[in-house]
Amino acid sequence: MAHQLTLGISQRLRKSPFYDATLRWGAKGFTVYNHMLMPLYYENPEADYWKLISNVTLWDVSCERQVEIMGPDALRLAEYMTPRDVSKCKIGQCQYAIITAEDGGIINDPVLLRLGENHFWLSLADSDVLLYARGLAQGMGLDVTLCEPDVSPLAIQGPNNLPLMEELFGDWIKQLGFFRFRETELDGIPLLVARSGWSKQGGYELYLRAGNYGEQLWEMIMDLGKKYQIAPASPNSIERIESGLLSYGNDMTTENNPFELNLAQYCHLDKAEDFSGRDALRRIKAEGVKRHLVGLEFDGEDLPVNENHWPVYHQEENCGIVTSATYSPRLKKSIGYAIVSVDYTMLGTGLTVETPTGRKGASVTAIPFIQ
Amino acid sequence: MAHQLTLGISQRLRKSPFYDATLRWGAKGFTVYNHMLMPLYYENPEADYWKLISNVTLWDVSCERQVEIMGPDALRLAEYMTPRDVSKCKIGQCQYAIITAEDGGIINDPVLLRLGENHFWLSLADSDVLLYARGLAQGMGLDVTLCEPDVSPLAIQGPNNLPLMEELFGDWIKQLGFFRFRETELDGIPLLVARSGWSKQGGYELYLRAGNYGEQLWEMIMDLGKKYQIAPASPNSIERIESGLLSYGNDMTTENNPFELNLAQYCHLDKAEDFSGRDALRRIKAEGVKRHLVGLEFDGEDLPVNENHWPVYHQEENCGIVTSATYSPRLKKSIGYAIVSVDYTMLGTGLTVETPTGRKGASVTAIPFIQ
Repeated sequence: MAHQLTLGISQRLRKSPFYDATLRWGAKGFTVYNHMLMPLYYENPEADYWKLISNVTLWDVSCERQVEIMGPDALRLAEYMTPRDVSKCKIGQCQYAIITAEDGGIINDPVLLRLGENHFWLSLADSDVLLYARGLAQGMGLDVTLCEPDVSPLAIQGPNNLPLMEELFGDWIKQLGFFRFRETELDGIPLLVARSGWSKQGGYELYLRAGNYGEQLWEMIMDLGKKYQIAPASPNSIERIESGLLSYGNDMTTENNPFELNLAQYCHLDKAEDFSGRDALRRIKAEGVKRHLVGLEFDGEDLPVNENHWPVYHQEENCGIVTSATYSPRLKKSIGYAIVSVDYTMLGTGLTVETPTGRKGASVTAIPFIQ
Repeated sequence: MAHQLTLGISQRLRKSPFYDATLRWGAKGFTVYNHMLMPLYYENPEADYWKLISNVTLWDVSCERQVEIMGPDALRLAEYMTPRDVSKCKIGQCQYAIITAEDGGIINDPVLLRLGENHFWLSLADSDVLLYARGLAQGMGLDVTLCEPDVSPLAIQGPNNLPLMEELFGDWIKQLGFFRFRETELDGIPLLVARSGWSKQGGYELYLRAGNYGEQLWEMIMDLGKKYQIAPASPNSIERIESGLLSYGNDMTTENNPFELNLAQYCHLDKAEDFSGRDALRRIKAEGVKRHLVGLEFDGEDLPVNENHWPVYHQEENCGIVTSATYSPRLKKSIGYAIVSVDYTMLGTGLTVETPTGRKGASVTAIPFIQ
């Protein structure tokens, strides 16, 4: 049931500053994310996975485009866009800041970086948050400057990232706390280096601040990384599902609120500044959610690729959808996430999933699958 | 230089209600548009082109997602989003309504459909205008309901569209004026039928209003279309460039204003209602644009696929970029569009284009290439 589709290339699908390099290094599968081509795998998804979890890898994640918010009302707009308490974010710090619409639905789940008192980046998942911010700023009459700056992140991820990072940046890199960043440069290449990344294997994100250095930066890292057996790779579905990371567009859309996705800890409903969705989220919290994200372990190992949201049944009652699924090579099991009625979220609950290759048994498990 | 990339499929890339049908009917190349998979060609782009210009074709253009605007302030919001005078749009009428940001940059160039006094659809090009509209509505405190409804357009395009359309819908279809629509149904399938479409070959767009009928509608049309030798096809780059149609993301982005793209006729800067970008557009109009879209005819026929914006030179001066290019089988020439300095827009001006396979001569021509 998995179709091999050819991607037609046009100028509308933007190229990252590392695009030519990723092709040279053997990128095969691509997707489109924030209107940009993004490499999905090099050797193949499972081979890339083993490289990520066992050593160190370099990812082109330029498609994590930034919304830059500057100007006298920048903090006010940033606060307005998220239930997270942005006032608590120090300069040089990152926050996972869910963007919520007036109805509490999730518009995006970026990492917010505070570069100054009134200077922010939102490092985006796949939706045009810049347009939302422009609409809000214009409608609210805010004094802000909004743009997508010339900023393109790379990620260095994997358990053996530190020797390479030290060789690249020196000793200070070890002192950089989780979700902290520093503005720096490398042979004159302007960068912002954050201890973050969309895996649980450890590592950093290097935000390149001038796309014309893309080739030079990529090759410099691959060259220095040679002695550490660095491999090119990408955000990896297998690893991120094992590790409990959610993917915007797969596991959440504007149809979901943060409470049904275990994201309550990022919602400060009583923070001082007003924000979009406060009333709705208070109501949802008071009433309780009707469905909730759970982990699933499938019977058998022969899951097809999940191109669509497979229906989930409890006995004959349709009670939810699978949002992501994968075979876990470490667990030797098929695992995934589902959003199901709160009646069926207890650990061990037996459910049935309608896949394109037939019905499969599954049981509710805890997330993450691997700590 | 044209790379054959494999598209990795995930749930994040939405499937149209006709997705399975398009695969069955041989769709090969795909792109991603408004977070949805869109077929680009079946046999190959040039074979599809000949079918489109010589007979009749069926396109899955579900990725033209709709922003639905309803409620007491719907007209006010629609007016605010575009320099077009929406008050002049009658119920049952379509308008090409450019969406402009506060700085006059183009956010999208949808077709607006007026379904009621305060009921609109924006049939979108590739950007999340729903998020922009939600930001504006919230910031301005407007009383509107905004959503992406369950609406998925098909297009029937090609010079021989009418016999099939009459057989499908009856006599009234001939009376439907250009850019007019009618709400109707076909064997109980709810539709809105508009005389419109993204080609100059004539035809209609069928907005399916309940995705669960996707398979049935597609097969009904292909079945009835058999005696007219209907073929599945898609919006076709060759035809649309020959015909002078612009593509959002290729020929225009938020970095462009309507005046530099020959779109002044769609800007009513003095309309009664306020709109986003009015001051900026008045200033741009008064000052005159610095660059302008032109047609180009290239020397030779051996153009590579244009994946990137090729630089354009006048003698040694970098004076613009190519935004789209194709070989025209009817003209037996390579043609395209460029945005160049207003100093070099005169018909016949000789320019040089830097392509991945070397420098090519080109001269400025009128648009459209074929009437």
